[in-house]
Amino acid sequence: MSTVRKSLCVALSIALLAAPALAEKPKKAKYVFLFIGDGMSIAQVSAAEIYAKSMAGAEPGFQKLGFTQFPAQGLTTTYDSSSIITDSASAVTAIATGNKTLSGVINMDPGKTKRYKTIAEYAKEMGWRVGVVTTVSLDHATPAGFYAKVPSRGDMYDIACQLSASGFDFFGGGGFCQPTGKKGDQEDAIALAAKRGYTVVKTAAELKALKPAAGLKVIAFNETLQDSMAMPYEIDRAKEDLALADYVDKGIELLDNKNGFFFAVESGKIDWACHANDAAASIGDTLAFDRAIARAVEFQKKHPNDTLIIVTGDHETGGMSIGFAGTKYSTFFEKVAMQKGSYIAFDERILAPYKKLKGAGGGNVADLIAPMKEWFGVDYAALDEPSRELVDRAFKRSMKGEVERATQESVYNLYGGYEPLTVTLTHLANQAAGIGWTTYSHTGVPVPTYALGAGQSLFDGYYDNTDLFRKLVAVMGIRVAEEKAK
Amino acid sequence: MSTVRKSLCVALSIALLAAPALAEKPKKAKYVFLFIGDGMSIAQVSAAEIYAKSMAGAEPGFQKLGFTQFPAQGLTTTYDSSSIITDSASAVTAIATGNKTLSGVINMDPGKTKRYKTIAEYAKEMGWRVGVVTTVSLDHATPAGFYAKVPSRGDMYDIACQLSASGFDFFGGGGFCQPTGKKGDQEDAIALAAKRGYTVVKTAAELKALKPAAGLKVIAFNETLQDSMAMPYEIDRAKEDLALADYVDKGIELLDNKNGFFFAVESGKIDWACHANDAAASIGDTLAFDRAIARAVEFQKKHPNDTLIIVTGDHETGGMSIGFAGTKYSTFFEKVAMQKGSYIAFDERILAPYKKLKGAGGGNVADLIAPMKEWFGVDYAALDEPSRELVDRAFKRSMKGEVERATQESVYNLYGGYEPLTVTLTHLANQAAGIGWTTYSHTGVPVPTYALGAGQSLFDGYYDNTDLFRKLVAVMGIRVAEEKAK
Repeated sequence: MSTVRKSLCVALSIALLAAPALAEKPKKAKYVFLFIGDGMSIAQVSAAEIYAKSMAGAEPGFQKLGFTQFPAQGLTTTYDSSSIITDSASAVTAIATGNKTLSGVINMDPGKTKRYKTIAEYAKEMGWRVGVVTTVSLDHATPAGFYAKVPSRGDMYDIACQLSASGFDFFGGGGFCQPTGKKGDQEDAIALAAKRGYTVVKTAAELKALKPAAGLKVIAFNETLQDSMAMPYEIDRAKEDLALADYVDKGIELLDNKNGFFFAVESGKIDWACHANDAAASIGDTLAFDRAIARAVEFQKKHPNDTLIIVTGDHETGGMSIGFAGTKYSTFFEKVAMQKGSYIAFDERILAPYKKLKGAGGGNVADLIAPMKEWFGVDYAALDEPSRELVDRAFKRSMKGEVERATQESVYNLYGGYEPLTVTLTHLANQAAGIGWTTYSHTGVPVPTYALGAGQSLFDGYYDNTDLFRKLVAVMGIRVAEEKAK
Repeated sequence: MSTVRKSLCVALSIALLAAPALAEKPKKAKYVFLFIGDGMSIAQVSAAEIYAKSMAGAEPGFQKLGFTQFPAQGLTTTYDSSSIITDSASAVTAIATGNKTLSGVINMDPGKTKRYKTIAEYAKEMGWRVGVVTTVSLDHATPAGFYAKVPSRGDMYDIACQLSASGFDFFGGGGFCQPTGKKGDQEDAIALAAKRGYTVVKTAAELKALKPAAGLKVIAFNETLQDSMAMPYEIDRAKEDLALADYVDKGIELLDNKNGFFFAVESGKIDWACHANDAAASIGDTLAFDRAIARAVEFQKKHPNDTLIIVTGDHETGGMSIGFAGTKYSTFFEKVAMQKGSYIAFDERILAPYKKLKGAGGGNVADLIAPMKEWFGVDYAALDEPSRELVDRAFKRSMKGEVERATQESVYNLYGGYEPLTVTLTHLANQAAGIGWTTYSHTGVPVPTYALGAGQSLFDGYYDNTDLFRKLVAVMGIRVAEEKAK
């Protein structure tokens, strides 16, 4: 290739990458999607991209996801009012209202007296339709952050009642965790929703049959629920079950109108998978999240001047890294594909029946050698002695038999409150792939934010999660008034 | 897996949207600074920011560094030709020449026959002055990446000879590791440099006394060298010793001229600290790096239209995270300030003399209880039993006495080739602060890139480390010609 041609190629590839430096009023959007990957930071996104590439070709690299190719990208800090490490309640409060608060608190101040108006409520006031979709239960912290105000995220019955009081147009995904209260003695929140005019559907067929209609308000519980009233992990999902992308499709169909809509969509189990240090489940849900976002991108193509799509995380979970001491400078992401299902499906389908069969303290680790291999790709016979000892100890602890001498803290550090055998197996499987974890909790590492559409350039740079609210307010044309304490 | 196919389709359909509507020609710069934080990714930067904030006030948060406030910011993938996890040799080859190669190879192709021209060499050809500064030895992989081409980064004598053959104007920082070759039987590379017209200085006073002069070419070895001919860690540096910022100052003074200059500056021991899982040393060097960058920002303010400052990492090291299982949702960064010096200074000043005194297998862990507390803030008496056992085992292994039953791999996973006692103490100290690690090697997590000045907007977005070369080429107005194999 001649020098000139080569220079041209370089110049052309640079020109395509060049982003205009804009210092003008942001473009207004009336169709706004806010996608939140719970627990999703750069390591989670990278893991999905490296996995996709490892499945697609022999060369090492990253197969970029759809949303990681969005033209505007920023980095977002997530600390809350009391800690560098936020939880989902204070994180969603920051994003939905622009205020820092305590972990556990949803849309109230740290003193728990002041109540904050959410961006979804502002949108509703402007005559927009509003949708909230999540893979976890609808009364969970992140979805609640758009419609509820409670001093504690544990007040899930209150949250469920506030859901149907919101008047929002579409809720979909998981179920309710406390439909009749903590003690089961309250008015059924589902019946209450119906009384308040909501159409409540509980099957895929019912949801598919729904068509847009004046005044229609929908709550759609997923037909199959897995742990804690959540949709199944993508790697556990049956073909006939709805995926997150299906809820985005139906949401767009029901919300679309000339005034505009605000649509919050959470992939909540990236977080749960990372709490359990289960990379395969996290990667599966991250790829499913990308497919859900692609449905919004299709809508954006039809309404390019009026649509904004934001993708962010509320915090990182697990201290995930693409590197483990034992694998040094190598990774083996093809091993992730060997995992048959999530940690929780292993608990439910393999370990729980075995425990029931053998009774407390019973059983023999040899019985589970085949399932360990089949489910996680962990070859017990090929493990080195310290790893085999870890499995043996974990097996005994899972069976509630004699266990290792240990303090409560060291047991927590080993198992994090999960089934000891299962979390030990995800650790061994992940480590073999070259994936490491530092915690069963969230971390303070910032998260990436991606933007496509009207006003996108506002989302470049390095800013706080409370700034996401301010940037959205600017793009949506909201006039923020401070709400009085109620 | 159908998941991947779907992702690929999504990726392709998004690709068209990713190109910005406007494609401006980038602004040209003739003063270009390229700052590389070796081993520095988002966790390392965040740790420094959280630490700075914890020292400055009671509220949790991030005290932004100077360079993290740069107006353009991107995310950069770092994989090399054979692995998701690069080393510094293949990483600098990507940045300096735009080519992927094998770990260990500097500016040659994976077949080790083709030699690539570096961005610094292009700059020199255009009549610019060129400077290369690093906190580690001048013949180390990252600085070598701007002036040398070798099949193995271990060929440090060859690298040192290529240094003085480069004709570049200013080299400063660490020393040479193999000045007379691996066997000590080669012509002294320092004498060779002098023969080739270089002024070689070895003290701070000599360096300070140097003034710009026609034809002046300088190699400045730091007066104090610590491990492997490197400058001391910032937390170990004596007041009278030069800091990285001083080398940037002197470099600017000597390089400044009307034609332009290219100045590569590496903070190399962020990486070394993270290999050893020593957060305090990493944070100290990251803050010193920021102070060094601030000197370039001062220059940029005087030449705003002609100057570009890039700050990036070559890869992440250690799988660092701001979260550890045992500290759950809390961090205690004020504890980082309790560390008196780096892990290597502890090895040299405390452990080595003690080992000499007691002999192999001798000594008693009780003797070191006071130094452990004083140096790392680790209170042996207050440790829980499993942690105390870890310290006892590590002490015995450091003293080469009786050790725990373990495989070679499990020993590596515990200590990573470092002094067992010292790395156990940095682990305990870091964990108490809420900082976790997953490896003693690099990881495949992308790194942030920051840009200030002419052409800055090119550096927004998500791109590969080879794109850094192409972007710099565009801003510097370089016409790239393919170099023939030599």
